[in-house]
Amino acid sequence: MCQLLGLNANVPTDAMFSFCGLSERAVEHRDGFGIAFFEGVGMRVFQDAASARESKVAEFIRTYPIRSRNIVGHIRKATQGQVELANTHPFTRELWGRHWVFAHNGNLKDYAPHLHSHFQPVGSTDSERAFCWLMQEMHKAHARFPGIAELTLTLRELVPQIAAHGTFNLLLTNGDALWAHANTDLHYVERRHPFGVATLCDADLRVDFSQVTTENDRVVLLATQPLTANEQWTRFASGELLTFVDGSRYEVQAPAWPVL
Amino acid sequence: MCQLLGLNANVPTDAMFSFCGLSERAVEHRDGFGIAFFEGVGMRVFQDAASARESKVAEFIRTYPIRSRNIVGHIRKATQGQVELANTHPFTRELWGRHWVFAHNGNLKDYAPHLHSHFQPVGSTDSERAFCWLMQEMHKAHARFPGIAELTLTLRELVPQIAAHGTFNLLLTNGDALWAHANTDLHYVERRHPFGVATLCDADLRVDFSQVTTENDRVVLLATQPLTANEQWTRFASGELLTFVDGSRYEVQAPAWPVL
Repeated sequence: MCQLLGLNANVPTDAMFSFCGLSERAVEHRDGFGIAFFEGVGMRVFQDAASARESKVAEFIRTYPIRSRNIVGHIRKATQGQVELANTHPFTRELWGRHWVFAHNGNLKDYAPHLHSHFQPVGSTDSERAFCWLMQEMHKAHARFPGIAELTLTLRELVPQIAAHGTFNLLLTNGDALWAHANTDLHYVERRHPFGVATLCDADLRVDFSQVTTENDRVVLLATQPLTANEQWTRFASGELLTFVDGSRYEVQAPAWPVL
Repeated sequence: MCQLLGLNANVPTDAMFSFCGLSERAVEHRDGFGIAFFEGVGMRVFQDAASARESKVAEFIRTYPIRSRNIVGHIRKATQGQVELANTHPFTRELWGRHWVFAHNGNLKDYAPHLHSHFQPVGSTDSERAFCWLMQEMHKAHARFPGIAELTLTLRELVPQIAAHGTFNLLLTNGDALWAHANTDLHYVERRHPFGVATLCDADLRVDFSQVTTENDRVVLLATQPLTANEQWTRFASGELLTFVDGSRYEVQAPAWPVL
């Protein structure tokens, strides 16, 4: 099993504080780490097959502020697949001329989806197989990017088919929105004006967000387990799939197609 | 225009020395940089839209030895496309369950290939369009990875079709082999026993490779212009496409299919 970190915001925001907290958990989850940052439609991933506590790349990330509106991070405790770079989350693919970034916490048993299309796994994890299948089915469902609302509806059909195979907590982003699903552990916290002081659970570190934000800033932070001790985190219901845009929950009120 | 750096070796080798030399050239080529390292079938890219002389990511790469058998680096001087992360080389895609990494030096005029398949550019460069077209045509030509010899023959058919549109010096690797093509500037040097001392052209830096190698090590280094002052670099002929495997030139002697 692993631990996830996600950030969705309406202004470019760095995740140094949260990544410091996540890294502390890499004593147990020491089989690699990765973190992806969108900058516009561009995206970069920093990864290492070493533990986030020991990796020089992770040390660099903890001290170098990359500001992004959509971030997905992951620390790995291997269940399926060797400890190697090819099996390190997050995984990325291009679809519809956009980058897609995916990270998974969980374990899918006997999961061998029919990958008949052009998304094929490079490594040997259940997670990358699930991501390839998701990409394949999203591509089959929509000739081009269908927008956030319609894609949310598509994911609500697709994700339970994977989740039937085991623990499937996921983060998925294309830089416009962040989709999150849990059937065991995933939490989120919404930060907005008036901002306060947050204290990490796992390290003696605190930040006064009121010093680094404006009244209009909105940030959603997601993590397998709450990262801060003094904020109100909301636990995902089992099977819940949520969409976050511009640092807020995005509600799909009705089918996005006309009902005649 | 830009500058390319490539490394192909039979043992994992770091490119710190060469990347230091390349970075010095980022005074003129300051519109971003990127460098990709294969580790097995796994691959990671370090990129920044900032100059390789000023980027904190580049500074990290110059001091952190990542050992790889296939490396592709690039410093950008923008000709087409804004200075932004989405337009920063190298570009990557997955095909046949393998990562592919591509970097381009040159400028393709009025180049708008018919991209009817599933490889679509994210950014707005001629380079990424050329890469997407190459991936599309490679995929159409072979249902699965055809091996190095056959793919070399395929590339010899495809690459000239792009090169007809302008300057097209390229590096392409999947971690097994490194393909390189030039129609203007590209050079390579083969390093093997007995190894000597190399001195950078652009910085007061030298390395005695005999101290860090064994008799069996073979390394090919590629660069737009020679990086070292005291080694024998070979210039690509115009239109030449070479394949490097395990630190040596790979010769395709005859058609890879049986002649009946």
